[in-house]
Amino acid sequence: MHHNTKGMKIAIAQLNYHIGNFESNQNKMISAIADAKKQGADLVVFAELAISGYPPRDFLEFDDFIERCWIATEEVAKHCTDIAAVVGLPTKNKVSVGKSLYNSAAFLNEGKIQDVLHKSLLPTYDIFDEYRYFEPNTDFHCVNYKGTKLAITVCEDIWNLGVQDLYKIKPMDELMKENPEVMINIAASPFHYEQAERRKMIMKANVDKYHLPIFYANHVGAQTELLFDGGSLAYNAHGELVGDLKYFEEDLQVFDLNQLPEKAESKAKPSKIALIHDALVMGIKNYFQKLGFKQAILGLSGGIDSAVTMALAAEALGSENVRAILLPSQYSSDHSIKDAEDLAKKLGSPYQIIPIKTIFESFEKELKPHFENLPFNIAEENIQARTRGVLLMALSNKFGYILLNTSNKSESAVGYGTLYGDMNGGLSVLGDVYKVDVFELARYINRNEEIIPWNTINKPPSAELRPDQKDSDSLPEYEILDSILFQYIEKRKGPREIIEMGFDEALVNRVLKLVNTNEYKRYQTPPILRVSTKAFGMGRRMPIVAKYLS
Amino acid sequence: MHHNTKGMKIAIAQLNYHIGNFESNQNKMISAIADAKKQGADLVVFAELAISGYPPRDFLEFDDFIERCWIATEEVAKHCTDIAAVVGLPTKNKVSVGKSLYNSAAFLNEGKIQDVLHKSLLPTYDIFDEYRYFEPNTDFHCVNYKGTKLAITVCEDIWNLGVQDLYKIKPMDELMKENPEVMINIAASPFHYEQAERRKMIMKANVDKYHLPIFYANHVGAQTELLFDGGSLAYNAHGELVGDLKYFEEDLQVFDLNQLPEKAESKAKPSKIALIHDALVMGIKNYFQKLGFKQAILGLSGGIDSAVTMALAAEALGSENVRAILLPSQYSSDHSIKDAEDLAKKLGSPYQIIPIKTIFESFEKELKPHFENLPFNIAEENIQARTRGVLLMALSNKFGYILLNTSNKSESAVGYGTLYGDMNGGLSVLGDVYKVDVFELARYINRNEEIIPWNTINKPPSAELRPDQKDSDSLPEYEILDSILFQYIEKRKGPREIIEMGFDEALVNRVLKLVNTNEYKRYQTPPILRVSTKAFGMGRRMPIVAKYLS
Repeated sequence: MHHNTKGMKIAIAQLNYHIGNFESNQNKMISAIADAKKQGADLVVFAELAISGYPPRDFLEFDDFIERCWIATEEVAKHCTDIAAVVGLPTKNKVSVGKSLYNSAAFLNEGKIQDVLHKSLLPTYDIFDEYRYFEPNTDFHCVNYKGTKLAITVCEDIWNLGVQDLYKIKPMDELMKENPEVMINIAASPFHYEQAERRKMIMKANVDKYHLPIFYANHVGAQTELLFDGGSLAYNAHGELVGDLKYFEEDLQVFDLNQLPEKAESKAKPSKIALIHDALVMGIKNYFQKLGFKQAILGLSGGIDSAVTMALAAEALGSENVRAILLPSQYSSDHSIKDAEDLAKKLGSPYQIIPIKTIFESFEKELKPHFENLPFNIAEENIQARTRGVLLMALSNKFGYILLNTSNKSESAVGYGTLYGDMNGGLSVLGDVYKVDVFELARYINRNEEIIPWNTINKPPSAELRPDQKDSDSLPEYEILDSILFQYIEKRKGPREIIEMGFDEALVNRVLKLVNTNEYKRYQTPPILRVSTKAFGMGRRMPIVAKYLS
Repeated sequence: MHHNTKGMKIAIAQLNYHIGNFESNQNKMISAIADAKKQGADLVVFAELAISGYPPRDFLEFDDFIERCWIATEEVAKHCTDIAAVVGLPTKNKVSVGKSLYNSAAFLNEGKIQDVLHKSLLPTYDIFDEYRYFEPNTDFHCVNYKGTKLAITVCEDIWNLGVQDLYKIKPMDELMKENPEVMINIAASPFHYEQAERRKMIMKANVDKYHLPIFYANHVGAQTELLFDGGSLAYNAHGELVGDLKYFEEDLQVFDLNQLPEKAESKAKPSKIALIHDALVMGIKNYFQKLGFKQAILGLSGGIDSAVTMALAAEALGSENVRAILLPSQYSSDHSIKDAEDLAKKLGSPYQIIPIKTIFESFEKELKPHFENLPFNIAEENIQARTRGVLLMALSNKFGYILLNTSNKSESAVGYGTLYGDMNGGLSVLGDVYKVDVFELARYINRNEEIIPWNTINKPPSAELRPDQKDSDSLPEYEILDSILFQYIEKRKGPREIIEMGFDEALVNRVLKLVNTNEYKRYQTPPILRVSTKAFGMGRRMPIVAKYLS
């Protein structure tokens, strides 16, 4: 089958947008249009909801916001002379029945918005809430441009070729009735460590079914917890990958439809840990940039979580912009302080030591008359963690730092952490990384030289809130714990299924109960950079007051 | 039009369910069935998703959870001999296309599940996420029972008679094709202070359109932030209210279809403030009960927010179960301490005074070398608030109390509060109540006698974190602030629309910016009892890193 594509050149523009920052988004697009034009492109493809940033969430409920999206798109359109563009934006549903908005792709040409097409399949699961805002489209047409018929779809519209089909219609089947020659898909497909491979599989499945080349433009950059890895794609009509845009960086590539290469060199597939590493670095970097902050602070304990968080932050923000505070208590071991100092010195980051003993004693003194001679317990452990929290926040407030949270996913899952203490922070860096993967990250960070002291990596984890405490006193070994958590959280297996895999029954029941009864703590944790298929936060919504497996 | 209803007696069972507590939910239903039977009922109607509690949220993604729902429903069915029941539960979608579940109504009779009907219209807005889980039903039939044809629908299925129609189908139009004689609607319709009136309007609109009697069974009780007020309803075929079940309490009423009263005495319509008061008391009570806690602690400042929170908690839990801690700083005024003590004494609640000066000084001392002689600012103010937070949490941990948060909606909106300080707590009681309404609540609490000292109500609000501080130093008067906030939050008006109402432009821009830039604080606040049409929390989902009106 031959498709006459008349020598059209298509640019994929993979940009890092800022939610609600219309001026910045519009200007980025305008300069990408100029760049694409310079490279001879006829068409430039931007991402889904590019004009607003993704996800705009309930800003979509404000008429004012929707109007600004339209105005910004008109501004971008003015620059579309001798070049066309596809831009994602929300538009109003003018019919009185249904949701009041569409998730749309505008076709910009000759200085104006020439056509608007709408998304049909609205992901409403995990971190997606699209049916909260948008009416599903049921009316399909292709766009004719310079004699070539374009089948333009929005993200999920081409994702229904898998095993479980969530939707009753297939938008590409509808568009094929008009015999298009090219598929264009604008997307907002956030990262998790398996997503790049899934994306390639889906694109290829579409080409295999429809025998058309496809150009796929994704977002790149972090939007609080959601990390967009980019990785925009182009395939020729034979299902061969001909373009594979950068991961975790802005990129623009131009493809000549008449001279698509037979096969692009596919980039080496990065390891899971390398992907997580790069995603987290981008997540930290963009969080600070987009909020207009430069400097981070964190409590450095000598343990592995804060060490990995600090190394990632140093990479994202520059070592000089990460201030480490060592907050030893009377239960802190000497090696902890040394390990923490070694890391700060190695990175060349500023650090100070503020012992918490005096403050802790002043709390104890004031509370003594009210504690009724009850024995030392979790209350006193938490006072220490919270004293640290107050000190870190005081420095954060005084100097305008953002406090980085250092909790990992395993701790967060079972509630092994102090609310308003070590659970504080503006951003949780490792909250979607299980402890076993935190160790892997540490080794990855040390792949060329010792940055994180090997002693930090090799010693048994401890919260050091009472004498000789070890994590393994109250938790199972992390290899076992993390395996059970993965089955329950990522795979949504019930207790019987997990026990049947060979895990100890009492342990499984205990772990699942810990996860469920600690929902109240996770409700108040900072946003967590999402790297897995199921992160705590917007993608996992649980009741607090419930009695299931608890 | 005469409907032969063969003397059927229908019971509406309005119960307080516990999410995931199948044993408790099932037993409650079984005893309601026995009770209804005793009163000669032929049919007993329970609420939407009664078997699981509402909303079960992502527990619905666990096969194990769905299977337990079915088993519990079968248990309830065993008790349906000589009586039938309608019970809400999630069921599996056996077709391979679409979401994997339905939101269903099971018809139980002769000891088993005889029929299962599915919900068509799936609310996915505000606090509702139903399309996240459920496939919309497109296949309709009535249920024949004892010679009477029942049109059974689930909640939203009869809510599309309003102005803006969110959905393309009208389930009752479909069911009318089979000429039913009675409408039955099982619901999970959470409280806000206008909802009871809306419900009545919708029920009447359905009767006016379909000329059938309707029996409407709602949930009652609190599920963390969602408060179900009950208020189940029955209307005769002439559109007259014949049954109006209790607000905020469990209830069961039996109606004889052949002898429906011409018109029930409608209960006096409670005032907005009375409704909010009763809703909050229920919210506190159920939160503690369902989590298995008895006692609350809170910081009592002498100001109005903590006073109202304490009075409500005392009503919900008993005065003896609410422990007040006065935490004066060097900036606290004498009248504050006296006002706080007066309230605790009046209620007869235990209270203690723990001054924070010594602890604050020990923080200052440790931080002095690191604060670089910078002037007293928000950092020191926050240390005080956080010291209080640590003390309250220490007592909470030591004695197993739940800390009540005392922030109001106005403060929460503009970020006038200290994260990890006065924003702490397991539950926010007033987080959906604007400051002007907090004053109204205080007056309502004092309607019979002075419980909250009038001095607390009449003095100008102050955080007392620096000398002679007043809220009005940094915020506009609450009457104006709250009006702007209401337009922005509840009404989703943009800045131009609010300014056009006559508010000062600079002030509007400042307030909206404060709301948006403080999203990061609200992300970490406790769950908030929802009493308005738009509460912070699950019903208002905003990006943190954004640049819109900020």
